[in-house]
Order: sequence, then C-alpha cells, then structure tokens
Amino acid sequence: MPRKVAIIGIGHVGATVAHYIIADHFADELVLIDTNEAKVIAEATDFQDAMANLPHYTKIKVNDYVALADADIVISAVGNIQLQDNTDDDRFAELPFTRQAARSVAEKIKASGFHGKMIVISNPVDVITSIFQEVTGLPQKHVIGTGTLLDSARMKRAVSTTLGLDPRSITGYNLGEHGNSQFTAWSTVRVLGRPMTQVAQMRRLDLELIKQESILGGDRVFHAKKYTNYGIATAAVRLMNAILTDAHSQLVVSNFRPEYATYLSYPAIIGADGIVAPVQLDLTKDELAKLQVSADFIQMKVTESLNA
Amino acid sequence: MPRKVAIIGIGHVGATVAHYIIADHFADELVLIDTNEAKVIAEATDFQDAMANLPHYTKIKVNDYVALADADIVISAVGNIQLQDNTDDDRFAELPFTRQAARSVAEKIKASGFHGKMIVISNPVDVITSIFQEVTGLPQKHVIGTGTLLDSARMKRAVSTTLGLDPRSITGYNLGEHGNSQFTAWSTVRVLGRPMTQVAQMRRLDLELIKQESILGGDRVFHAKKYTNYGIATAAVRLMNAILTDAHSQLVVSNFRPEYATYLSYPAIIGADGIVAPVQLDLTKDELAKLQVSADFIQMKVTESLNA
Amino acid sequence: MPRKVAIIGIGHVGATVAHYIIADHFADELVLIDTNEAKVIAEATDFQDAMANLPHYTKIKVNDYVALADADIVISAVGNIQLQDNTDDDRFAELPFTRQAARSVAEKIKASGFHGKMIVISNPVDVITSIFQEVTGLPQKHVIGTGTLLDSARMKRAVSTTLGLDPRSITGYNLGEHGNSQFTAWSTVRVLGRPMTQVAQMRRLDLELIKQESILGGDRVFHAKKYTNYGIATAAVRLMNAILTDAHSQLVVSNFRPEYATYLSYPAIIGADGIVAPVQLDLTKDELAKLQVSADFIQMKVTESLNA
Amino acid sequence: MPRKVAIIGIGHVGATVAHYIIADHFADELVLIDTNEAKVIAEATDFQDAMANLPHYTKIKVNDYVALADADIVISAVGNIQLQDNTDDDRFAELPFTRQAARSVAEKIKASGFHGKMIVISNPVDVITSIFQEVTGLPQKHVIGTGTLLDSARMKRAVSTTLGLDPRSITGYNLGEHGNSQFTAWSTVRVLGRPMTQVAQMRRLDLELIKQESILGGDRVFHAKKYTNYGIATAAVRLMNAILTDAHSQLVVSNFRPEYATYLSYPAIIGADGIVAPVQLDLTKDELAKLQVSADFIQMKVTESLNA
Repeated sequence: MPRKVAIIGIGHVGATVAHYIIADHFADELVLIDTNEAKVIAEATDFQDAMANLPHYTKIKVNDYVALADADIVISAVGNIQLQDNTDDDRFAELPFTRQAARSVAEKIKASGFHGKMIVISNPVDVITSIFQEVTGLPQKHVIGTGTLLDSARMKRAVSTTLGLDPRSITGYNLGEHGNSQFTAWSTVRVLGRPMTQVAQMRRLDLELIKQESILGGDRVFHAKKYTNYGIATAAVRLMNAILTDAHSQLVVSNFRPEYATYLSYPAIIGADGIVAPVQLDLTKDELAKLQVSADFIQMKVTESLNA
Repeated sequence: MPRKVAIIGIGHVGATVAHYIIADHFADELVLIDTNEAKVIAEATDFQDAMANLPHYTKIKVNDYVALADADIVISAVGNIQLQDNTDDDRFAELPFTRQAARSVAEKIKASGFHGKMIVISNPVDVITSIFQEVTGLPQKHVIGTGTLLDSARMKRAVSTTLGLDPRSITGYNLGEHGNSQFTAWSTVRVLGRPMTQVAQMRRLDLELIKQESILGGDRVFHAKKYTNYGIATAAVRLMNAILTDAHSQLVVSNFRPEYATYLSYPAIIGADGIVAPVQLDLTKDELAKLQVSADFIQMKVTESLNA
Repeated sequence: MPRKVAIIGIGHVGATVAHYIIADHFADELVLIDTNEAKVIAEATDFQDAMANLPHYTKIKVNDYVALADADIVISAVGNIQLQDNTDDDRFAELPFTRQAARSVAEKIKASGFHGKMIVISNPVDVITSIFQEVTGLPQKHVIGTGTLLDSARMKRAVSTTLGLDPRSITGYNLGEHGNSQFTAWSTVRVLGRPMTQVAQMRRLDLELIKQESILGGDRVFHAKKYTNYGIATAAVRLMNAILTDAHSQLVVSNFRPEYATYLSYPAIIGADGIVAPVQLDLTKDELAKLQVSADFIQMKVTESLNA
Repeated sequence: MPRKVAIIGIGHVGATVAHYIIADHFADELVLIDTNEAKVIAEATDFQDAMANLPHYTKIKVNDYVALADADIVISAVGNIQLQDNTDDDRFAELPFTRQAARSVAEKIKASGFHGKMIVISNPVDVITSIFQEVTGLPQKHVIGTGTLLDSARMKRAVSTTLGLDPRSITGYNLGEHGNSQFTAWSTVRVLGRPMTQVAQMRRLDLELIKQESILGGDRVFHAKKYTNYGIATAAVRLMNAILTDAHSQLVVSNFRPEYATYLSYPAIIGADGIVAPVQLDLTKDELAKLQVSADFIQMKVTESLNA
C-alpha cells in the first residue's frame, strides 16, 4: 500500500517536513491540513509546481480529515511560534494556544477513524504529546513526540565541531524534557571508541562548555530566524521512516515511561508498532536525579494542561 | 573533486535550495552567503542540527567569498521579495533593489576568481542574469537564469490537473520573459502522444483557461505565502544537476540568444560547459511574434538597468 | 501502509531488481521467492549484510507465498537465461521452460489471495504476461509486462549517443513485441523540439543505422555477459514506482490492447490501478502495418502457449 | 568539480559497485576498467540502457587509464573469485593471481598520474592493499582497504537478528585481517545503551554462537552464489562517500597502523585526505593478543607477496 502521511499545521516546520518528504520520496500520499486554507492551498500548489522537475511523484491532498482514516502516520506541527518570540525562549509561551489547538485537532483525528501512529512536533512537545494521546485515545506506544531527538543532534553537532568528527560517528543522548530541564547524559555519549567523559579528560575539554554551545546554537537559530525548521524537520522524518520501514531503530524520542508516569525523552526501539520495546540505560546517580526533576516538571505541566 | 556550490542570498528561496541540496546530497560542499550575517549563520546551524539525522554529510561554509575561487556553481537567490508585496505582482518592483545588490555581489564574485557556472534565480531574472554576466565578465554560456523552467512546470501542473496525468509525462515550454510577457508555446506542448492543441480540440478543452490556471496558481501561492520557494528551488536544482553531471539535458532556461540579442527563456542543451548547444524550435508565426515582444521588453529593461 | 513488493525468480535480473529497490528505498518490505532455496537465502543474507551500511531499512522475507496475500506488487523475473545461450538470441528458446514455470508460479500467486498488481519481466514477455493474467485471473489492467520499455531506452541510448544528448531529453517509443518483430515508431520520436525524422534529414542521419545500433547494443550486452540485468531492472522499477505512487505516468509497456486482442507494447497511463487509461498514438500507415504483424505474431505464440 | 570515480575489475563486485553508484547518483563520472574488453563494454552499455529510466545522469567511460589522472577515487575490485571456489573458503587462494594483477594495475595507475585516494576490495584485501600502496607510491593514508567493514556489518546482522534490532543501532567492530584470523572485539560492541557483553549476560546469549552465525552467513552466501557482492559493494561505497564528502566518519577499514607495521582493520577517521586521524580503542588484553596474531599473519603474507 502507498505510504500515507498527514501533516497538520503547515507553518515553517510543517511545510519543511512536507518538502523533505516530497523531495526524498518518503511518502506516496501526503495530506496537508491547516486552519489557514489559503496558506495550505498555496503550499500544496507550490509543491505541485515542483513536481515536473522532481524524480518521484507524490500525491497531495489538502484539508481532508476524512483521508486520515487510513493514513499510516499523522504528524502534528500545530503551533504558533510567534507566541514564543518576546519571551525568554520559553516553549511554554506557546502552551495555552497550542493546548487548545491540539485538543481540537485531536478530536478531529479521533473522529476520522485514524488508527495509525502519531508523531508530535508541537511544543511544549512532551505536554502536547500527552494531550494528543489522551484525546485521541490511541495507545501510548502509538503517539510519540520528537522530544530530544533534535537536542541530541545539537549535542552531536557541538561535540563534532569540537573534535572535527562526523556527527553521525557520535552516539549518546540528551534526556528528559524537550525544554529547559533537559540535560546531556554524558555517560551515554561515546566518541572515538571511548566514553566522551574520558575523551574530554584526555583532551582537556570542558563538557559544560560543549553543552552550552549545543544549546546556544539552537538559541541563535531561533533568534535570527524567529523559528527553527531544518533540524527539527529532519528529526521528525527520521522518526517517521523508522516507523514506516519497521526498522526497530533505537532513537531518543518523547515516549511514555511508566516508571516516571509521564512522557519524556528516553531512547526506545521504534518500529511499525510505534514504541516496540523500551531501552534501559545505565545512567549515573546524578543523571537519574536530573531525569527525575525533568519528569516531575513535565508531569506537573501535563496535569495543569489536562485540567485546564 | 567534491561538488562545491555557493548560494548567495539566503532568504526563503536560497534556504530552500540549500535544504534541498543537503537533503538529497546534491553537493558535497555548500557555501552560504548573505549580508545578514546572523541570519545566514542561523540557517547554517539549523542545517548542522539536521546532520546527525541525515544519511549524507554536507560541508557548510558561511559568508566566505574566497571559497568561490574553485566553486563549481554559484546560485544567486539575492532579492527582496517584500518589495513585491504591495504591487500588482510585478517582478520589476524588486528591480531597483536587486539590480544594486546584483552588481555588488557580481563584483565580489569576480574578485574571488570564480570561473564556474552561475545560476540566477533573482528577479526580474532575465535582467538580473544579464547584469551578472556583464559585471562578472563570465562567458554568456556560463551565466544562466532559471527563467521559465518554473513557468513551464506550472503549465505542466495545469495541464496534468486537467487531464489527470503525471506532469512529467507532458513536454513543452513557456517561452520569453519570466514575467508578464511570457507565453505558453502551445505548438511545443505534447501530451498523450499528440500535440496538446489536438488533444484540446478532441476533448473540447480551452487552452486559454489552462494557461490562466497555470498563472493563477503561481499568483495564489505568492499572495498566500508572500513568496514562492518550492517550485523555484526545484527548478534551480534541476538545472544545477544538469550542469554538475554534464547531462546534456534539454531544459528551458534564460539564456542569451544572439538573434534576439538578449537573455530570454528558450530551450537549450545544458551540460558542464553551461549552454552546450542551442535548440531551434519550430514555432508558429504567432508564437514568434509573442517571443519578439517579450524579447524587446527584456532588452529594454536590460538597457535601462545597465545604464542605471 | 508499507510498500510490499515480491520478486519471484532471483536470478541475475531478480536480484538486481531487489538490490536497486533496497539501495534506493523503493519498498519497505521485500519478499524474495525462488525454487533454489539456498540461492535465495544467500541473496537475502547478502542484502542483510549490506543493511548496516545503508541509509534505509528494508525488511526481507524469503520464499513465503503466504506473504503475497497483501503485497502491493509481484514482479516475475522467472526464467532460465541459459536456455537462450546457444540460440540465435531468440527469447522464445526460453518459452517451454518459462511457460511451465509461469503457470506453476501463477497458481501459487492465485492461491495466496494476491490481489495487487503484477509486473512481468520473464521472456518472451508478451506471452508470459498473458499466461500470468490468464492463470491468476487478475484483471488485464493489473498484469503488465515491461515490454519495450527497455527497447525504447535502448533506442534513446542510440539516439542520444548520435546526437550528444541526455537520453531523458528524447521522447518516443519502440512498439509491439519485446522480440524480433518490434520496431521503433519513428513518428513518435521527438528530439531537440522536433520530430526525429526531421532532425535526421537535417543532419543526414540514417535512422536505420541508429535502430541497428540500438538492437546491436543489447545483443553485445547479452553475448558478453550471457544475460542483461541493469537496463531491464531499471525499467521494471520505473514501472513499479509509477504504480506505487499512482503517478499516472505515460510509459510504453506490454498491456492488453483490445483492438489487437493481445498483449503488446504500446504506451499507456500507469497508476495505482495498473493501466489507468489507454493512449492512442497517431502512427503512420507503415507503423500500423508493422504493429499488426507484431500483434499477430504474439497472438499466435500466446495461443500456442495457452494450448500447450 | 564532478566526482570522478574509477572501478578496476568489473566482475560481480565491480559491476555491483558501479550499479549502486549509478542508481544512487554517488558519482558524476565513472571509469570502468577490465582486461575483458567485451565484458566491460557490455556492462557499460547495460548501464547506458538504464539511463533513460533513471533520475540522474552518470557519464561512463571504458578502459581509459588516462582518465585516472584527475580521478578522485580508484576502486580496485580486481580478482578471480573462481580460484576460491574449490578451496576451503580461503581468500588466499586468489593471492597468486590477484597479486600479479594488482601489481600490473598499480603500475598503470601510477603511470596515469593518479593522485587521488584508492579503495581496495580485492582479496586477500590487507595484502593487496599493501601491494597497491607499495607499487603506486601513494601515501599510506590514501590507500585504504574495505577490510572488516563488511565483517562488522555481518556481525551487526547477526546481533540484530538475535535481538530484533536495526543493525544500524548497533556499534562495534570486527578487527584485524579480513580473513580467518579476524575477531569480533566484543568490548567495542554496544547495543541497547549497554556493552553487548552485559546484554548477552542479562539475556543469556552465547556470543560465540552469534559470532559463528555472522561468519556462517557469509559462508552460506559464498557457497550458494559462488561470490558475494551486495554486502561488500555497499561497504565500499560507504567508504567512498565518506572520502568524497570529507565526512570525518569513524569507520573500520584496512589502514596502515604503525604500531603493527602493517595494514589491518581498525577504526579510523575517514575524510577527503583518506585516513585523516587514527582512533585508539580501549581493547581487552585478550583482544590485543588476537589483534597481534592477526597483524603478524598479515605481515607475513605481505612480506611473502612483496618478495614473490
């Protein structure tokens, strides 16, 4: 069957996800949904104006919730990034708006009969992922947030720049909230065949500085562009492909961890059935404490949001 | 040698071209140049934040004109689309700004020792392509505008929608100015194994309506988004790939036609040496007349601009 | 849903089709079937030994007819090319063997409950396609042979070599039998914006020589390699992608034409429903006569085979 | 500049490398060289017969050593796999033949003025890589063997099958000779966020059995097909892309390690300058001993061969 993917929220991120999918032939049918009908039609037409010059054909539908009934994946890029603009980079500035939008979208998704997997990009992603799961009633393992898959890529960017290495030759994770309480679990980061902590010691590198740079990079992107799109879209599509190909890839994403009773970013095995298996890291005591703090914070925000 | 491509002007179009190149591994080294340094660094960082999740590595440099000395291709996406916003969709609203920017950029390109091929997207593209060729002193065959490669794709979109066909199964061209004086040369359009004019007669289709729809589609994109990027970026990259692979592909692009003494869009054979051979269409008298009008208009605007 | 493709007959061609699909991520699940179990397991393992170094994951199953029940596409590459070896390049040397093999495979396909689309590569392709359609009972529009999609590519190779052009900038078809009675319908071939016949006249080219070269090229490949695989595999996968993406592409393939009461190669519009629309070329009298000869020949062979 | 790659030895492996490069547009110009001229012309024609149906154009030259003068990469797939056939899977059965062929080819490469990077697939790869380096006089860091990049992929295949994981979610290496003295350095293998040794203990897995399966898989492929091509071609192309994109990727390849005074497989950082940096693993005492045995064996064989 053709791979059918719907993207809801065709702003900077949603449109970039769509473009990446079309350019690389990652889906056969794409449903684009946005409350701004003129905008979503415009994006669809712009994509169709590319089709004659592209090697692969992608079928595009617009604002058709009915088409979700047999979609494989729905990606939520719903949000209003402008709300974040005058705040101190707080993804929670978007929450009141996106919370409402997510509820409304989730109800429409539910009504469509959708029974595939959801990928949530919308911020604050751990909270919004919870809302989507709660309202759609989909199994927890079928509703996944991109979480710190982006932050981990940023960490790898900072490490790779410091060491002159391909970021794909670095393994390891940022964990917890895709937000201010997240942290790099340095005990999981390996590079050059060794733990990063050991390499840092040998080369007298300051891990704190590298962590700062990883975060500052993201901040600089946001401040100069007023949004970020390429890094996050690439992360979302990588997650999508792991599901569509049933790859059983280990990726760090926002998934429901029973021991924390909340969604938070922690590696998991991703396949056609969503979260097909948990991973159990061997974290340090300090990292476990940070993760607990992050989990508590997310849980509090989720509770607030579900009660709001 | 790695394929080295520079993009000058990292607005909506320049960034989309860069993303498409990075996502599809169409170059090995990318130089991004923009007068807004914070913005171009932000885009580069956003791309680097994607790298850990991408299958192929692309080296990215920022604001380094020196790097152009051995670049294979320089793409100009310089422009200020906001200038077009309150006008009646007139690409010439951008001219005074872009003319100046193009001159300034062209001098820096020349100073860098660049001796590759230039692809010009900046509007009004036929005029700006002329300016780039004039100021850089590069051979005419090495400076090419995307021209009506986009408009032809739009025509194919309109025809394909009408007939329920893959736009890539339609051949034919929009010719002349990438602007209001262009026209669809219906005598060149073939579909379903026949001339489109014959198919239109058989199926009682109104070619004028199809042409309108092709143009209106582009207008709708522009009005709703305030810019267009996916269609044009795809056209530019297709042209780029024909050069980089020395494909000798027949593409309709803005190239210097001696018999009209100006740049205008007309099919040509594209390869490593830029325009490697001309094509001579068998146009109708009416089409020839329209092409002359379009050529005269471009020539007038070029003359104005070079004297400005 | 993931794209599920089965390939039956994992010889040189079947394995190359599988490799191309895996390397380019054209399917999400691949079922490989062959009577030589050790061989097909070996190919599957060889592909799995590639997986760690590939960007995309493909699930591979071996010799599982049950898996065909929900496959999108079944490709038959069944055959025994060695039978052709000592004959005068006659694809019919394979017929007695492949006819039997095709019947047996077709019955297993039918028993599996397969209800997708079939692509037949097995030679003599027009006859074997008929047998597959007859025995599986699938609709005629859902059983398609690669036919002269390869021969047309060879014709484009010969024309492109003569004129120094990208073969993709040439349109036109070889028609009829994928065998000795086929012919290049020069009236359909267009290049450089003109009919090829006109270009040939202008440049004093001998079309007969070009046609010879197109055929001789294929012969040389066969004689030196004892089989051909890259050209044919690429043609088959292009056809497959047109179906999987519902592209509505115009491709010349072996399809059932009621006016000739047989399968033969003639362009058709290809989409998710197989042959979604016929094309009606405007052939010359001479070409129509040749096509009739080719059709009669195929029909005779099909009748012989169905009665055998 | 276009990426120019030459492949010498167009047997099963060389042709598969070429096909993969062409299908995925990993080079812009390909030079195919083989002593069997009819065969290499046949392969080139077969590829050209694919071109009309491929999205990207690749220029192909045949048996042109002069073209190596400015090639980026030369890949040696020279060999005679039939020599291995009746032996106990001993890659050294090929040595007398391939040693001679390699010397002869290396001299022609040297005479061409080639000054790019060499990738050696020919077996026994550690010895043949040494010969190519010695005879061409290229810097050691510019002559690299595929080594245990394939064996490591086989180990990942075996681990991934056992654990139900994406092989790309497993890190770690087989080290030493691409031959019987190699070994899986289990201390380097990590999976599910932990050392594989720990996971094996937790899940009561027998690492020896997994290692056997990884080797047996390769053997089964060889015995049933009489050669292996897909796994090795994919490994070679991954190495090639790391060089062409200057990715600074960490890959396990056959490279010259001064402390062992020989070529052997050990991870290194790969970029445009070949081996751009060494990696220093933290192996166990037992692994170091095995590596020494493997190194001694290779060194002996190299000495024999250089003196032969």
